[in-house]
Amino acid sequence: MDMTPFEQSESSVRGYSRAYPTVFASASNARQTAEDGTSYIDFFAGAGVLNFGHNNPRMKAAMIAFLESDGVAHSLDTYTTTKRDFIEKFRDVVLQPRNMDYRMQFTGPTGTNAVEAALKLARLTTGRREIVAFSNGFHGMTLGALAATANDAFRKWAGVPLTDVVRLPFETSPGGDTAVADYGAALRNASSGLTPPAAFLVEVVQAEGGVNLATPAWLHQVQDLAREVGALFIIDDIQAGCGRTGSYFSFDGMGLDPDIITLAKGLGGFGTPIAMNLNKPSVDDNWSPGAHTGTFRGQGLSFVAGTVALDYFTDDVLMSAVASKGAVMRDRLEAIAAAHPEQDWEVRGRGMMQALDTGDGAFAKRVQQAAFETGLLIGPCGTGGQVIKLIPPLTIPDEDLAEGLDILDKAITTAGVA
Amino acid sequence: MDMTPFEQSESSVRGYSRAYPTVFASASNARQTAEDGTSYIDFFAGAGVLNFGHNNPRMKAAMIAFLESDGVAHSLDTYTTTKRDFIEKFRDVVLQPRNMDYRMQFTGPTGTNAVEAALKLARLTTGRREIVAFSNGFHGMTLGALAATANDAFRKWAGVPLTDVVRLPFETSPGGDTAVADYGAALRNASSGLTPPAAFLVEVVQAEGGVNLATPAWLHQVQDLAREVGALFIIDDIQAGCGRTGSYFSFDGMGLDPDIITLAKGLGGFGTPIAMNLNKPSVDDNWSPGAHTGTFRGQGLSFVAGTVALDYFTDDVLMSAVASKGAVMRDRLEAIAAAHPEQDWEVRGRGMMQALDTGDGAFAKRVQQAAFETGLLIGPCGTGGQVIKLIPPLTIPDEDLAEGLDILDKAITTAGVA
Amino acid sequence: MDMTPFEQSESSVRGYSRAYPTVFASASNARQTAEDGTSYIDFFAGAGVLNFGHNNPRMKAAMIAFLESDGVAHSLDTYTTTKRDFIEKFRDVVLQPRNMDYRMQFTGPTGTNAVEAALKLARLTTGRREIVAFSNGFHGMTLGALAATANDAFRKWAGVPLTDVVRLPFETSPGGDTAVADYGAALRNASSGLTPPAAFLVEVVQAEGGVNLATPAWLHQVQDLAREVGALFIIDDIQAGCGRTGSYFSFDGMGLDPDIITLAKGLGGFGTPIAMNLNKPSVDDNWSPGAHTGTFRGQGLSFVAGTVALDYFTDDVLMSAVASKGAVMRDRLEAIAAAHPEQDWEVRGRGMMQALDTGDGAFAKRVQQAAFETGLLIGPCGTGGQVIKLIPPLTIPDEDLAEGLDILDKAITTAGVA
Amino acid sequence: MDMTPFEQSESSVRGYSRAYPTVFASASNARQTAEDGTSYIDFFAGAGVLNFGHNNPRMKAAMIAFLESDGVAHSLDTYTTTKRDFIEKFRDVVLQPRNMDYRMQFTGPTGTNAVEAALKLARLTTGRREIVAFSNGFHGMTLGALAATANDAFRKWAGVPLTDVVRLPFETSPGGDTAVADYGAALRNASSGLTPPAAFLVEVVQAEGGVNLATPAWLHQVQDLAREVGALFIIDDIQAGCGRTGSYFSFDGMGLDPDIITLAKGLGGFGTPIAMNLNKPSVDDNWSPGAHTGTFRGQGLSFVAGTVALDYFTDDVLMSAVASKGAVMRDRLEAIAAAHPEQDWEVRGRGMMQALDTGDGAFAKRVQQAAFETGLLIGPCGTGGQVIKLIPPLTIPDEDLAEGLDILDKAITTAGVA
Repeated sequence: MDMTPFEQSESSVRGYSRAYPTVFASASNARQTAEDGTSYIDFFAGAGVLNFGHNNPRMKAAMIAFLESDGVAHSLDTYTTTKRDFIEKFRDVVLQPRNMDYRMQFTGPTGTNAVEAALKLARLTTGRREIVAFSNGFHGMTLGALAATANDAFRKWAGVPLTDVVRLPFETSPGGDTAVADYGAALRNASSGLTPPAAFLVEVVQAEGGVNLATPAWLHQVQDLAREVGALFIIDDIQAGCGRTGSYFSFDGMGLDPDIITLAKGLGGFGTPIAMNLNKPSVDDNWSPGAHTGTFRGQGLSFVAGTVALDYFTDDVLMSAVASKGAVMRDRLEAIAAAHPEQDWEVRGRGMMQALDTGDGAFAKRVQQAAFETGLLIGPCGTGGQVIKLIPPLTIPDEDLAEGLDILDKAITTAGVA
Repeated sequence: MDMTPFEQSESSVRGYSRAYPTVFASASNARQTAEDGTSYIDFFAGAGVLNFGHNNPRMKAAMIAFLESDGVAHSLDTYTTTKRDFIEKFRDVVLQPRNMDYRMQFTGPTGTNAVEAALKLARLTTGRREIVAFSNGFHGMTLGALAATANDAFRKWAGVPLTDVVRLPFETSPGGDTAVADYGAALRNASSGLTPPAAFLVEVVQAEGGVNLATPAWLHQVQDLAREVGALFIIDDIQAGCGRTGSYFSFDGMGLDPDIITLAKGLGGFGTPIAMNLNKPSVDDNWSPGAHTGTFRGQGLSFVAGTVALDYFTDDVLMSAVASKGAVMRDRLEAIAAAHPEQDWEVRGRGMMQALDTGDGAFAKRVQQAAFETGLLIGPCGTGGQVIKLIPPLTIPDEDLAEGLDILDKAITTAGVA
Repeated sequence: MDMTPFEQSESSVRGYSRAYPTVFASASNARQTAEDGTSYIDFFAGAGVLNFGHNNPRMKAAMIAFLESDGVAHSLDTYTTTKRDFIEKFRDVVLQPRNMDYRMQFTGPTGTNAVEAALKLARLTTGRREIVAFSNGFHGMTLGALAATANDAFRKWAGVPLTDVVRLPFETSPGGDTAVADYGAALRNASSGLTPPAAFLVEVVQAEGGVNLATPAWLHQVQDLAREVGALFIIDDIQAGCGRTGSYFSFDGMGLDPDIITLAKGLGGFGTPIAMNLNKPSVDDNWSPGAHTGTFRGQGLSFVAGTVALDYFTDDVLMSAVASKGAVMRDRLEAIAAAHPEQDWEVRGRGMMQALDTGDGAFAKRVQQAAFETGLLIGPCGTGGQVIKLIPPLTIPDEDLAEGLDILDKAITTAGVA
Repeated sequence: MDMTPFEQSESSVRGYSRAYPTVFASASNARQTAEDGTSYIDFFAGAGVLNFGHNNPRMKAAMIAFLESDGVAHSLDTYTTTKRDFIEKFRDVVLQPRNMDYRMQFTGPTGTNAVEAALKLARLTTGRREIVAFSNGFHGMTLGALAATANDAFRKWAGVPLTDVVRLPFETSPGGDTAVADYGAALRNASSGLTPPAAFLVEVVQAEGGVNLATPAWLHQVQDLAREVGALFIIDDIQAGCGRTGSYFSFDGMGLDPDIITLAKGLGGFGTPIAMNLNKPSVDDNWSPGAHTGTFRGQGLSFVAGTVALDYFTDDVLMSAVASKGAVMRDRLEAIAAAHPEQDWEVRGRGMMQALDTGDGAFAKRVQQAAFETGLLIGPCGTGGQVIKLIPPLTIPDEDLAEGLDILDKAITTAGVA
């Protein structure tokens, strides 16, 4: 396997390739195969994009048919038949059964662009500047979204002050139990030195931030405060949405009513880029035509595969599998934690995003390396990378899931607790 | 053609669909076909993305083969065989013949993300904050890139102050002849109130800004000042690069030596998203692994089609065609301008980006509408949309080009000069 | 009394003259006399400047002698004999008895300038940007100090974003009990999205903010956190210092060890402008000569009167009087509050800064008006002006104090509880 | 002379005392006398404050009388008889003869506070953020005014980004001939990336910036552009006003019509602090009562001495003397420059602000030192302190002026041209 071209000609900024020093040649469902024939079980799913597996056969067939029929692959924000199919299917499968009334905004095809658009719309709607974001939150890398991202490992490269964001502790962070109430009290005090924000931007499950779960009660507290002070309530469901936690949205069943929902990653199904915001009509009305543009907003292949992906939500087969496989993952991680009672490890997660918080980034890195060397791809997250996050494709076969968990178990032993 | 789903469920922010009120069903080379069978000649090429035509057959075949072979469609920044092919081909076809030594950074797959990454790297490299950008410049919609974008029609939606950018007039703008020299003189004056910038960010041909062309002398003046004050010299070649102006880079043959070059739009060949910065190694060395990330940086389909696209640059067939077709476009626009001597219209352009500056946005909008109604897609640009920009696929058949120009000519008459 | 020249030629921004619609002609100790002969008892003392009374005879004599001897009235930051006298006296009377080692920085002669200088020095010392300031805090009107001031009634006139300040609730504000601990916890979390601040800027008694008193325990918590995170601990003692609360500094006896102390108002004794920061030597060493300048830093008359004022602190006569008069004020306010048990009024204060929080700005304004009409000057403070603050000269005769309190009592009745 | 107390207990930030290492004990008109009896001729006048000499006898007498009569020394912005006297005199002597209709705003008693108030009012009036300020401009040290100050020697200590100011070259700076026109052209271009500013802030004679003189034509160009784009035109006359250049305002006779004029330094006559903005009524109407406050706005001693100072402008005696003495200064500097033709020195100035630009800060510093050692106080200004600025009291006796110029001449020889 020749890695020289990468080492010589690709930017030093490359990162995952240092954790996985091989060259991948093909991939299918929950397995990636390297050029030298080594097969890896994938518990990372392209950072949570590949909910439906690599090269999902139904999507692949639809995409090939689309290509063969000269479908419109790139359309900006003009109307196309494939986009209409996607819109109608999303409306019928996702929105209408939930009685949700939202408009779909296809932004530039990345999560960070979706967040940038949401923040623009919130500022435009309210005429205010500040966005409330939370500790451990991750929302993207472009300057507007990066300002809302908490982790200093990303923020420190901005090179300019990241402004117009107010930071509160997330529910599970130190001070998280009182912070929202205290902030609300401060906003009601005209001598607090605070002005009301344009929006509260929150993840229901913080994925990159360490698989931290907010309770419905806390989320309602945030939403209620937003309503009280005239701010928008925005849920970033980019990594936790599209079925990952066991239902389409991570907040299904919680009785929440966000003004904007950001989606990306799993939305296109196949790994081709797409991002979409769901805006309440009264909020969306504040957009003027062309106020937020972008070249790659109309991605035919993503619409085609994304439309196929929505079939997984017309019945409960996949979501039931997520529940059962998620339980398998959860049980195994708890068994691993129980086997190391002296370590104070914590298992957290929902659906098929399950994680072991080891409290030790160096250890987690060793686990990642040992797992890679024995055929498993995992990605650490959280502060210093101390949380081992498992996000396999939702479609992973039971035997691959079991084998992957076995490899993980051994890798933890191999890594050697510090 | 049912447009109701768009009107009911798509965001009010949609723009191009208002100028082209139809539903496109398929597309091939320089033609798009609506659901009702109407065929449109495409002089817009997806905002300059589709240099090699819609559904380019060679790319399509390669993409289908890639899909059928379970290639790695989504890979973050891990190594894949398809990315290696792209890197090697780009190095061999583009960089080595020009004796250019650059590293390739695949950013999030949009132009705005490429610009954000370039600005981060410039700030990181220099430890400075301000970026010099130019009037009429267009660099993207996310907050970091938007700060460098000039047009107030886009800036006013940011909702927060856009900071850390110094604005100079572009060469062709009022004051553009003296501005760079004056700014240099000011930087040399310790009482000027100015501090040296991190970078100068410039387009060789401002596409969205109105098809404004910088001279090599002026570009050298900018580059020389950047060198003198320890700033980076960044060329944004996102719309003018990839063959559009008659050679791979818009600045080929000018003797320039940029520190960073941003590429996107035409790079993926087929209209699937990709963006790449070329960083000088000494600059690139300032990146730490993972300092700028993004989910959709590893797009297998874009690598596959983009690799095919590079074949167009292994000989001079396409570039010769660009020269001759560009001349046809130019001649026709000049004839049109000559037919309206009282209007003071100006024809500007290079290669197959040619434009008629009508000085009247309302008139240009009427031309766009009349053209659409008679089977031609064009997009106005520049302040108030007063410049009619023609950017057909470089592969457009001569007869389609001729027919499109005929339609344009008539549309101008139909629109009725104000 | 001719007020026309003011009404015609003075700016609309004038404020106190609207509450006190008369023309003052002379003043002595705790009384001001209007042009029409009306005498007013002064419970406002020029916003806390005139701790030693109007036209303090000893100061007046020293100032006249200074003028007659052609002393250096205006000296920038050159050395003068009068400044030396002041420095030596301040060192001997204030610093040495407390074992305090500080350098004296004479800034531009206003409190806001002292705060600006302190913030510059904190940022310079730490290389950080953010200042932690507290709700209800008041620190001045120039942009740097205004950013640290909490009250929106002042902030909203800035016309630009007020940045680089983090706002926490003061101890007595909602959330004030947990905020400092929570903020500390967040700073220890690398994913909090926070970076450590340059300084904590706090008032021991918030005067303008509503006469809110911090406890020593809370102040130690702030100081400890500052130490832990490498930030400076700055006490703004501009209104509460110089004897007002019963000792020279408002924090005497609390065991605190601030890095910078800002002083102004009472420092010059007579009402002529002066401001001075006390900087710890290790912090002060970070200044370069001339890094913070200002025209009016060397005020001979203020040095002369301020030197006389220090005589009040060489024995305990005045401070004992402050204790006893403060108790008289306190008792009377509590009696007033007790007479209106249905109103939930609160009496707060220390030394001769005592206040009645009426919870009703409109009512307090009526009290101010009724008091003025019957010969007493008072000034409301706090949110919406709901707190009636009493800060007479420390030298007020007992009979004037008693008469003033009587007038206040009646004014409260006259004003009529809402 | 004991300097130990300063060295031990005064802040390291002290500056002028390093250039003048002595202790001043008294001062009269244009002479300062050190504690050891050495007499110095004062060509610096307290940084341009003491236009009427140290301890001006008429002012001194009035101040003593004021003190003896228990005048109101400190009055915030209440009405006092002394303030009324000042307002009426200023109106009668300065404004009415010029047909100027302005309201007087007494801000905090420093130039920087006056500038802060002016910028607030401009932003409030226009609803815009940016202020246009000029290279080499000096406007103060607090963050709002410092943002408008050009010299990096002051700016670099701010510790935070200085924002919301657009910088143009002053007329005499490189690019200054075209900058205003170019900026105007850019503002008319909707794609320039610029938004119209709130105000243009300009000095007619840049004093600290190096004694740079704007022409009336250029100032009209600035004023015209301000009018065109709906911005305020603000003249900072803090150092050049109050008679320094040969008439009350530095712009007298130029036909200019500023919206706001800032005054301070010489306004109080005696060296006690005061600052005042003159606001056009239509602009001033935008203030709400109390929108910009400050403790030391009502300075009785400054009103008293300032009222006496206005007597100098009821006839032409002083201004005639300024003309003739200014010519003496000018002639002598030109003779000095002519004696060193190889040095390319430039003489600049107006009235009794005359300067020799030596182009060499180190040399100018040696001149300052040699002058001090032989009994003359001067202060360098401009970039790197290369400009020797002479601003003696306007009341300097002819013999002191001549003697001072002799000392200067010899000091230049002593300093030794580099």
